[in-house]
Amino acid sequence: MKTPKVAVVMGSDSDFEVVKPCIKRLKSFGIEVVVRIISAHRTPEAAKEFASGAKDEGFDCIIGAAGKAAHLPGVLAAFTTLPVIGIPIKSSTMDGLDSLLSIVQMPSGIPVATVAINGSDNAAILACQMLALKYDELGEKLTEFKEEMKTSVEAKDAKIQAMADEV
Amino acid sequence: MKTPKVAVVMGSDSDFEVVKPCIKRLKSFGIEVVVRIISAHRTPEAAKEFASGAKDEGFDCIIGAAGKAAHLPGVLAAFTTLPVIGIPIKSSTMDGLDSLLSIVQMPSGIPVATVAINGSDNAAILACQMLALKYDELGEKLTEFKEEMKTSVEAKDAKIQAMADEV
Amino acid sequence: MKTPKVAVVMGSDSDFEVVKPCIKRLKSFGIEVVVRIISAHRTPEAAKEFASGAKDEGFDCIIGAAGKAAHLPGVLAAFTTLPVIGIPIKSSTMDGLDSLLSIVQMPSGIPVATVAINGSDNAAILACQMLALKYDELGEKLTEFKEEMKTSVEAKDAKIQAMADEV
Amino acid sequence: MKTPKVAVVMGSDSDFEVVKPCIKRLKSFGIEVVVRIISAHRTPEAAKEFASGAKDEGFDCIIGAAGKAAHLPGVLAAFTTLPVIGIPIKSSTMDGLDSLLSIVQMPSGIPVATVAINGSDNAAILACQMLALKYDELGEKLTEFKEEMKTSVEAKDAKIQAMADEV
Amino acid sequence: MKTPKVAVVMGSDSDFEVVKPCIKRLKSFGIEVVVRIISAHRTPEAAKEFASGAKDEGFDCIIGAAGKAAHLPGVLAAFTTLPVIGIPIKSSTMDGLDSLLSIVQMPSGIPVATVAINGSDNAAILACQMLALKYDELGEKLTEFKEEMKTSVEAKDAKIQAMADEV
Amino acid sequence: MKTPKVAVVMGSDSDFEVVKPCIKRLKSFGIEVVVRIISAHRTPEAAKEFASGAKDEGFDCIIGAAGKAAHLPGVLAAFTTLPVIGIPIKSSTMDGLDSLLSIVQMPSGIPVATVAINGSDNAAILACQMLALKYDELGEKLTEFKEEMKTSVEAKDAKIQAMADEV
Amino acid sequence: MKTPKVAVVMGSDSDFEVVKPCIKRLKSFGIEVVVRIISAHRTPEAAKEFASGAKDEGFDCIIGAAGKAAHLPGVLAAFTTLPVIGIPIKSSTMDGLDSLLSIVQMPSGIPVATVAINGSDNAAILACQMLALKYDELGEKLTEFKEEMKTSVEAKDAKIQAMADEV
Amino acid sequence: MKTPKVAVVMGSDSDFEVVKPCIKRLKSFGIEVVVRIISAHRTPEAAKEFASGAKDEGFDCIIGAAGKAAHLPGVLAAFTTLPVIGIPIKSSTMDGLDSLLSIVQMPSGIPVATVAINGSDNAAILACQMLALKYDELGEKLTEFKEEMKTSVEAKDAKIQAMADEV
Repeated sequence: MKTPKVAVVMGSDSDFEVVKPCIKRLKSFGIEVVVRIISAHRTPEAAKEFASGAKDEGFDCIIGAAGKAAHLPGVLAAFTTLPVIGIPIKSSTMDGLDSLLSIVQMPSGIPVATVAINGSDNAAILACQMLALKYDELGEKLTEFKEEMKTSVEAKDAKIQAMADEV
Repeated sequence: MKTPKVAVVMGSDSDFEVVKPCIKRLKSFGIEVVVRIISAHRTPEAAKEFASGAKDEGFDCIIGAAGKAAHLPGVLAAFTTLPVIGIPIKSSTMDGLDSLLSIVQMPSGIPVATVAINGSDNAAILACQMLALKYDELGEKLTEFKEEMKTSVEAKDAKIQAMADEV
Repeated sequence: MKTPKVAVVMGSDSDFEVVKPCIKRLKSFGIEVVVRIISAHRTPEAAKEFASGAKDEGFDCIIGAAGKAAHLPGVLAAFTTLPVIGIPIKSSTMDGLDSLLSIVQMPSGIPVATVAINGSDNAAILACQMLALKYDELGEKLTEFKEEMKTSVEAKDAKIQAMADEV
Repeated sequence: MKTPKVAVVMGSDSDFEVVKPCIKRLKSFGIEVVVRIISAHRTPEAAKEFASGAKDEGFDCIIGAAGKAAHLPGVLAAFTTLPVIGIPIKSSTMDGLDSLLSIVQMPSGIPVATVAINGSDNAAILACQMLALKYDELGEKLTEFKEEMKTSVEAKDAKIQAMADEV
Repeated sequence: MKTPKVAVVMGSDSDFEVVKPCIKRLKSFGIEVVVRIISAHRTPEAAKEFASGAKDEGFDCIIGAAGKAAHLPGVLAAFTTLPVIGIPIKSSTMDGLDSLLSIVQMPSGIPVATVAINGSDNAAILACQMLALKYDELGEKLTEFKEEMKTSVEAKDAKIQAMADEV
Repeated sequence: MKTPKVAVVMGSDSDFEVVKPCIKRLKSFGIEVVVRIISAHRTPEAAKEFASGAKDEGFDCIIGAAGKAAHLPGVLAAFTTLPVIGIPIKSSTMDGLDSLLSIVQMPSGIPVATVAINGSDNAAILACQMLALKYDELGEKLTEFKEEMKTSVEAKDAKIQAMADEV
Repeated sequence: MKTPKVAVVMGSDSDFEVVKPCIKRLKSFGIEVVVRIISAHRTPEAAKEFASGAKDEGFDCIIGAAGKAAHLPGVLAAFTTLPVIGIPIKSSTMDGLDSLLSIVQMPSGIPVATVAINGSDNAAILACQMLALKYDELGEKLTEFKEEMKTSVEAKDAKIQAMADEV
Repeated sequence: MKTPKVAVVMGSDSDFEVVKPCIKRLKSFGIEVVVRIISAHRTPEAAKEFASGAKDEGFDCIIGAAGKAAHLPGVLAAFTTLPVIGIPIKSSTMDGLDSLLSIVQMPSGIPVATVAINGSDNAAILACQMLALKYDELGEKLTEFKEEMKTSVEAKDAKIQAMADEV
């Protein structure tokens, strides 16, 4: 019996801090997570080899995180028919706009499912939503998660008027 | 036996021309397509009702297309655990940047899988990639599609030097 | 006899620091302030319920504050005919441009009265200007407030030449 | 018995085409509309005179439309405590971003209620929402208008699947 | 015999730190400097009064510094035929782009001579260049200043290779 | 007796249409206009030679117009102490933002008085304002010009209500 | 004896019109030009194969032209140590900013020599400047070309005053 | 026998920290590095003199680094047929967009090979790629360097899964 399995690929180890919440969230859904550092430009062969073989190795989805001219998610998508999710990483210039445009503006034929700049947590949730098409238990977990978010906001809402009264 | 089924929701009938290639592509993959006009702001009840019930009505994925302050995909995502794909539509001002940011910059917890501005065709392909996790035949169709794209580029490549020789 | 009453709704408790000057200013005008945390995406039902009932509960105006893909003010506006004021919150990326565009670029039919990025104080003053159409005493307070601002600038103006002389 | 009255001020007669839907919509709500061409820079005295006296002349709200370094709405707001709505006009350069920022980024103390770039229709609706605080009949008209928008979208929604079937 | 005289007007005392180098540079050229805090929006009467009378009071040029929706230089220019120089101040959002566009994109008929964002020093030098048309001694000072800048760069250039050798 | 004299330098003959209103306006003020095509990059020697000698040849001010990486005004300013006015020309990409930033963001020491994108007319008026410091008759012409603008706006204002009544 | 040889690779045949001046200019310098259509995403194997073998096949430099998320030049650069020049192509949205950032913001280690948006002609000239390091005759041609540009500007300069006199 | 020689020119000594990695990398390739501070605006004669004579003094390539209205690389390119590489320096406003556009958007005829904002290291590598056309040993060094980058990424990749397991 197959289990859900997602690859999280980042272009550089400097992206690790931003990517952590993605890894954590995927694990919290019980998804097997394989984490890789592959550079579209420094180890392009590894990118090709990994993406080409990802489906056969049992991956259901690939998440790619990269900054600046963030080619990684698009390059991975070129070599697979699996859905590829892109996380634009904000670097020291251009406030993340460069990586957002480099990831989202993919040409016709090769989409990358782009989330918010540094939207690492959402990349994991989106992956889980995709995988829930295949793994029913993930659908239930997502329903619970949505309920928890709601409860959390409601709890904060319950307290805010008192805080506001002190302003 | 369940068949693949995708909803294509647009915020206004003025988006129809941009959305057409998405509908066409989904059909070419043999996916059942339900098309709706629902406005996040003018018919918010319909948005809630549709998105809340989408999973039970057999939809596997929702594609939302909207321009300007393009809230539609995010509002649909609020009411479902299905994956939601967002197509930012370029309107008469701001060159699509407004709709791109309104769709992609979703807060933690509620992702929207964003494609390129006016990236209607890619929204369909991304949906197909997601559904291929569940429907094996779609995986095969995607492999064929990828091969066709390659062949098409190669055919153009074969002719371009001759065209260049005449420059 | 009805008293002026304004709702201040924020999408997340992380917005509270930015929203505080708005609450303070409204109180200084003697306006009753109800503060809520409602997420357009995590608690969309609460958004609908609150906005739909706001007029009947005696609210004169709703102020919505949100960051990134800041759908909250627009979603509230979808469910009410009360004027809705939007405060774009600057988040960690895109310098507030994303929330500004997400709030201001509303489609025809559902306006959001948008103030400056992090323009929390001005949202309160704008609300007061609207309510002054109905509550005459607010008009007087605004005239006083305008006079105070003038006096304050004049006081600073009176000192600046001396400061400049020391440059 | 006072009737609702709104001023629509534009910076140049070249803005008239964009401003027309605003005038039309205001009239459709039964609001008296006074239209003026006043330039913040070429006829600054007229701007001062008009805005200073607007409240006494029975205006409930001022709508200012301007392009490029669109100072007009802010300059009008400087001279009145009435709510001022700003319409950023898209000119031949910068796609409306210049007028949007010039209008929305007002300093603390003097807000301008900003609508979308070229959002002329919404300026009228926002004005009507403000005036409905004072004139009950306008509230009813807004409710009807909201219902009509809903019906219009539903009518388009009813037809779109058939159109999509032909794609 | 008339002496050169320039007004430096800022919209808020929070702009003083940025404006200081302008004041300092003007003084270094022997130009009389009158510094004012005048708000286009909070003390619009003062703006009108000052700008209208500036020529008669012996000012040769007005420098206006403002942030965000930086209307001040344009408003001053509306009331005078003296050349007005605008300094866009960078505020806490939008990285100065808002004030730059609000100042530079003036409509036909009322120019503002715009310098770089926070370009306080250059505003003074530009003023001096203008005044040198009238006051010959300023032309000589500018020639000296240009020579000093050259010498300063040359001195740094003479040292940089040695610094580079240690890299 | 010296007469007012301004140079209008453009980087390319393709800028001529945009520059025309500048030339026309300068002539209307009775200013002698010398027009040149000098490229900062293709004829840099000419740029140096012209700017270095401009003061001695009786020029009071230089206006430089250029698009894209619009170095021309800055390069001219490097070789003269005369005030240099820069007109950013909108080219086929980037909507004029590139030329605006290339012209306005000059380093400390070498200002360029920047006007609006394609703000050719305002460049002439600004030049006239500068020259009026030296030539009294220009001050009178500017006062007349300001009055004419006012009259023209008032004439349009007088007609607009009638036009609006037909909307 | 080796001759100069440059590859011009575009991502799609829709880029051909923009690329033409590049091809023409290279030929005018007597450089052998091989033109290819290779897509970083649709024919990634071809991209790898071509770039990996380019040096051995006698290419001196590769020029890559692409629009939107323009990964092509970066992907080619990943597989070669030859200098790669990138031409950002303006597509129907974002005015070329997306392709510019996607090409120029390359990570440390893998540069792409980026020219202006649609700067096809300059890509050829830059290639020629690089090749002139190796082929002396190209240096001479560049010197001639520079002289011709100068002469051409001077010819236009000689005529412009007469044209201006008629304004 | 000639040795490889590159000039690194910066506009101000404040750019030195950003430029350091460029100098270091060039030295690591065994390239002779001459470092200069030359301002396009404060020492334009030096810019002309240096660039005009660079080829004759044995330079193979010029690297120019500048911020804001970064004219330096373009001005150097105007006076030489050597390839000029431009490094846009991020300054305190506009996040580097101003210098990027000022450097990359060069007019037809005078290209500047632009690298990423603050992309100092890549400027050196690009220079080395150009010089490798002439100096065979540099080609070998580049091949080694590419191999080292690959090895370094692989080493990080080998460790990341363990780090991820602890998240």
